[in-house]
Amino acid sequence: MTSENGLLGERPLRLERGELAQALDAPAIGEDIFQLAADIYPICRSITGDGVRETLRCLSRHLDLQIREVPTGTGVFDWTIPREWVIRDAFIKSDKGVRVLDFRQSNLHVLNYSTPIHAKMPLDALKPHIFTLPDQPDLIPYKTSYYQDRWGFCMAHNELLALPDGIYEVMIDAGHKDGHLTYGEALIEGACRDEFLLSAHVCHPSLANDNCSGLALLAILGARLSRIKTKFSYRFLFAPGTIGAIAWLAQNADNAGFIKHGLVLSCAGDGGGPVYKRSRRGTALIDRAMSHVLRHSWENPAILDFFPCGYDERQFCSPAFNLPVGLFQRSLYGSFPEYHTSADNLDFIRPEHLAASYRTICAVIEIVENDRLMLNTKPEAEPQLGKRGLYDSIGGSKAVPQKNMAMLWVLNFSDGHNSLLDIAERANLPFAAIDEAARRLTACGLLVPPCAESSQDSPEFAKGGQDRSRSEIMETGSGQVMAKAGSS
Amino acid sequence: MTSENGLLGERPLRLERGELAQALDAPAIGEDIFQLAADIYPICRSITGDGVRETLRCLSRHLDLQIREVPTGTGVFDWTIPREWVIRDAFIKSDKGVRVLDFRQSNLHVLNYSTPIHAKMPLDALKPHIFTLPDQPDLIPYKTSYYQDRWGFCMAHNELLALPDGIYEVMIDAGHKDGHLTYGEALIEGACRDEFLLSAHVCHPSLANDNCSGLALLAILGARLSRIKTKFSYRFLFAPGTIGAIAWLAQNADNAGFIKHGLVLSCAGDGGGPVYKRSRRGTALIDRAMSHVLRHSWENPAILDFFPCGYDERQFCSPAFNLPVGLFQRSLYGSFPEYHTSADNLDFIRPEHLAASYRTICAVIEIVENDRLMLNTKPEAEPQLGKRGLYDSIGGSKAVPQKNMAMLWVLNFSDGHNSLLDIAERANLPFAAIDEAARRLTACGLLVPPCAESSQDSPEFAKGGQDRSRSEIMETGSGQVMAKAGSS
Amino acid sequence: MTSENGLLGERPLRLERGELAQALDAPAIGEDIFQLAADIYPICRSITGDGVRETLRCLSRHLDLQIREVPTGTGVFDWTIPREWVIRDAFIKSDKGVRVLDFRQSNLHVLNYSTPIHAKMPLDALKPHIFTLPDQPDLIPYKTSYYQDRWGFCMAHNELLALPDGIYEVMIDAGHKDGHLTYGEALIEGACRDEFLLSAHVCHPSLANDNCSGLALLAILGARLSRIKTKFSYRFLFAPGTIGAIAWLAQNADNAGFIKHGLVLSCAGDGGGPVYKRSRRGTALIDRAMSHVLRHSWENPAILDFFPCGYDERQFCSPAFNLPVGLFQRSLYGSFPEYHTSADNLDFIRPEHLAASYRTICAVIEIVENDRLMLNTKPEAEPQLGKRGLYDSIGGSKAVPQKNMAMLWVLNFSDGHNSLLDIAERANLPFAAIDEAARRLTACGLLVPPCAESSQDSPEFAKGGQDRSRSEIMETGSGQVMAKAGSS
Repeated sequence: MTSENGLLGERPLRLERGELAQALDAPAIGEDIFQLAADIYPICRSITGDGVRETLRCLSRHLDLQIREVPTGTGVFDWTIPREWVIRDAFIKSDKGVRVLDFRQSNLHVLNYSTPIHAKMPLDALKPHIFTLPDQPDLIPYKTSYYQDRWGFCMAHNELLALPDGIYEVMIDAGHKDGHLTYGEALIEGACRDEFLLSAHVCHPSLANDNCSGLALLAILGARLSRIKTKFSYRFLFAPGTIGAIAWLAQNADNAGFIKHGLVLSCAGDGGGPVYKRSRRGTALIDRAMSHVLRHSWENPAILDFFPCGYDERQFCSPAFNLPVGLFQRSLYGSFPEYHTSADNLDFIRPEHLAASYRTICAVIEIVENDRLMLNTKPEAEPQLGKRGLYDSIGGSKAVPQKNMAMLWVLNFSDGHNSLLDIAERANLPFAAIDEAARRLTACGLLVPPCAESSQDSPEFAKGGQDRSRSEIMETGSGQVMAKAGSS
Repeated sequence: MTSENGLLGERPLRLERGELAQALDAPAIGEDIFQLAADIYPICRSITGDGVRETLRCLSRHLDLQIREVPTGTGVFDWTIPREWVIRDAFIKSDKGVRVLDFRQSNLHVLNYSTPIHAKMPLDALKPHIFTLPDQPDLIPYKTSYYQDRWGFCMAHNELLALPDGIYEVMIDAGHKDGHLTYGEALIEGACRDEFLLSAHVCHPSLANDNCSGLALLAILGARLSRIKTKFSYRFLFAPGTIGAIAWLAQNADNAGFIKHGLVLSCAGDGGGPVYKRSRRGTALIDRAMSHVLRHSWENPAILDFFPCGYDERQFCSPAFNLPVGLFQRSLYGSFPEYHTSADNLDFIRPEHLAASYRTICAVIEIVENDRLMLNTKPEAEPQLGKRGLYDSIGGSKAVPQKNMAMLWVLNFSDGHNSLLDIAERANLPFAAIDEAARRLTACGLLVPPCAESSQDSPEFAKGGQDRSRSEIMETGSGQVMAKAGSS
Repeated sequence: MTSENGLLGERPLRLERGELAQALDAPAIGEDIFQLAADIYPICRSITGDGVRETLRCLSRHLDLQIREVPTGTGVFDWTIPREWVIRDAFIKSDKGVRVLDFRQSNLHVLNYSTPIHAKMPLDALKPHIFTLPDQPDLIPYKTSYYQDRWGFCMAHNELLALPDGIYEVMIDAGHKDGHLTYGEALIEGACRDEFLLSAHVCHPSLANDNCSGLALLAILGARLSRIKTKFSYRFLFAPGTIGAIAWLAQNADNAGFIKHGLVLSCAGDGGGPVYKRSRRGTALIDRAMSHVLRHSWENPAILDFFPCGYDERQFCSPAFNLPVGLFQRSLYGSFPEYHTSADNLDFIRPEHLAASYRTICAVIEIVENDRLMLNTKPEAEPQLGKRGLYDSIGGSKAVPQKNMAMLWVLNFSDGHNSLLDIAERANLPFAAIDEAARRLTACGLLVPPCAESSQDSPEFAKGGQDRSRSEIMETGSGQVMAKAGSS
């Protein structure tokens, strides 16, 4: 082991994964995610405009997305949907006509959402419009000005210092027009209407970790989830940060309560962390499941209490909604030097890190899908496991194997008050071991669901990647009928 | 102080003990317990059979036991009472007729509950029936096969290695027959019907710490408890592990709820620990009293949360009963190299360790007997202790003596919500100091029981070992009359 | 920073103080307090008598005090008001007529409340009446004998050792007479009748830290508080230790419930600590406010749970009253070598320490006055702070400024369940930062009080030290009218 967190290669996921996680997995899953992240990396996104649309088209090749367009001027709670941004080109030319700054080389060079400009001016007049990072003088910063009209450039501090005095031609061929804010979403329906929300922001331009990594990971996850049966419905949301999440909440306020679990994903591809930031509720199932997976599968995970800045979890956790939505990251945003700079590029994220993040999310989904209350049918004393072939017949050993301990924990605490995750936490055993013990005990009648109806809720997994019919009619526990439109 | 836990001799009990603990004590108590443990050490016990009966007869010389016989085939919850085991002799003889393994030298040599065998066979055919400990090659392991028909021997690994190839005569002169499972119990009635259960398993053959130590300690404790008046009734149970406790629960299911406190004792004679494993409830009075005594009297006690393997506390803590029964040990079972080997012999336990364990249990009994809610009769301000001779009349000292602090704690927190143990914990003072302060304050009227009736429940101790009449008629708080038969 | 707690000069108060604390402050506040402490230092106080009266007269020059006289023999709960002590002179004279001990040099030389004596006796007969500190042989101890008739002297151990054998004239020109116990109090009325009690004991003779420091600090604080408008009423109490507080409680039992916050102050002028001892309730607002200020303003504060010895907080925290009154000190009583000796003199306390203690109390008052529940008027999502000029318009920075974080915390947690102090604790930000954010958000309508009436309770601060009319008629929330008599 090394204390240099994340620098010496990926630490292995030790969690014993079950059927669902296996069905979602694939040997090259990290490469798949990386490739999709690389596909969308060059696109110049902003909170509105064609960059978002092009990104959603790329993601739709994997996961069938509904594209939503919210018109400019629409009120969404305290906010108003802004105009669309159009950007075609931008440069600063020396008096010799050489592009000393060129949008075509990096879309970070333009202040995101900048107003247009075309003028000649001396360097001194230009400088107040150029953002640099004096402490990281070789990197281009990522800067925005969404809500105040302003034009500007971003460049490496050393390149700015190298500019000779003189007259420069500055040009930002951009504009704002009435149009729409665009976001994409997909609802993969499960056995019940309650939802698991998975959300990633789609507004950042060429920043690989923040958030091509999150977008690609969720699109690949959605693609694979859509092929298996689940208990919960899964909602994937790819929306511009802040304004996009607020627009979604405003348009879905009546149904947001169906969200019973949720994760915001960003910065999922570097080798740091991982970090989980709890939902505002702090003890929601998603918080407990994520803590469980992180503690059992990672060396030094950071689990943080909710705080009201960050990504869109802060919108989902607004006091009026207070949804159980946490944030998963590898390195915490703002904490790594590449954050919001041109160094957050495709070299900074790696397939193995993306795969580890992906598997962590899958392990959490597996817990959320499988956590359940069971009842011991022989609660008066320890049942005789030996006569059922569940126990060694030779006694006197010094230690009890984990397999047996897991059964004893499940039996003793399946008293109507403790779910399997409760028991896993109390036993300090991986959820998968407790789940497996519960299945063995259920098979021989020592464990039953609290009442007959409950068993209808138990998930059935399609093994080996069979495609489930997307047009089937599913009946939820509450008798509500949901028609699934065919797709992908 | 030394960090070598338990290796450099017994650490002294620092607890200030009160009247009850003194009445239960004796200078040679450790030697008395050791002698009884030594008496029962040679007996070949199993979960059934005459070994258990002979052991109970030895214990009955100290504590008058009711012997219970449960017929083979009786259903006890999920289990069935097995047949009785009879063992007369066992050996492995070389082709020269020499006993290379001899049951008469150690009853551990036979797989406990083994089926009979008498045959000649080559070493290779014999070896699968011989259990050894390759990591502890000079020790004989203790192995059992209660619930699957199997014959076998146990021996030192080095002795097995030394056996030359050849034909051996193997003989286990044993058998199984319909009969009974045997256990012994004694109920020492106190002022109320609520019970304190003290239990030790009686099924292990010649293993001194596990559990001749526990059996002997409890028999001696019971003998002394039966001579004094107590508030609670004390039930002593000596039953075979698992099946015996389950049989007891099955036969006493309706009255098990009278058990308000309980301890399982094993491995009480070595120099390690001590260890207390909490009841499944976790915060029962027995858990709090044991924690209090261990923290105030021992250097480095281990206090563990409940887990569902171990000794018979796991049966008493089955979810349907969930009795407040914990486990007291010196070294935690399975954690010391002598565990379940021939090294757990009479050299491994010592009178001073047994005495320290005994006194710890007595201190816990003292708390359970004396914990009570009292009320400050002058709650408006600190009463004037000086005028009652409870306080020094010279003021200005830098520190307040513990005796005075204890009185101030009792006065301030005897508000109807805090028992004396609650106060001792809050004050971080030994229970005995708080109890003593409460007695002084009660004597001068500053403290009273919550209501008049309660005072009838207060224990009266027979000092100096007077014998209480065992045939007296006692009336419990609920008006129920219990006739005590004379005994011992 | 240094680990030598308090030895290398005062550590600065880092708390961002608000309007109220500023109004109470003054550049030379430490010097003002020190001067008053020095004024009262020479007076020979006891639990009764003219020393108390003279001290209260000095304090009244700053804070208009009501002087209460409780007759000797009056019953106050379990106690009886003792006789007044009169002391005129005391000495021990050698056979040459030289005063080898002289009350005129230190009033500590007489056992406080001593009976009179005038006799000649050999040294051996005298010694049992002389108290010394063998471990601090150059210091005179402070000793008392209030509740048992006894005469005695206190002197430096080395001076006692130096006394030659011989006949000494001993004289204590003192006496006890029926009279009164005297205490002083002042009620500074605020907008509501609920009270903040500030109490210091007035019975110790020439001990500077214990408690000339506390008396002087509170008198100066009261003087300044009486010039501004507050929400709570402030009650200042200067009473003899134990018997004085008990007398006050006995005489004010019906109205003690108006005390909603309280502090006992002693040893407020040395360079140690600070120490806060929680009220018996443990989580009262005063406990949380004091903890907050100490953790945010001091390096290594000690925050102790309540224990039932100490100063008069133990009377106010008697179980029948259980008032939310804590104890503030610099060095914990009994823990510093100068405690209750002649070394607790004017060299031991310093203006800068007194000022720091004073400002700490003011910061606590500011929290108690300003803690309130507010409601976010836009709870569905984060409001758009930028359009209100509350937020930078340039995005993409790595860190969020504390000013902005404070606003986000207030918005997200002003949900009807969290007061501003709750939010400050959760955010780990100084209360003043949270309060300032709340004021900014209230100003632009994003935050409102829970209901219209509540706003009548909000404090209005008189800025810049304007004097409020002391004869105004104030109407409390409950409609009760309190007439304020003009004063000071």
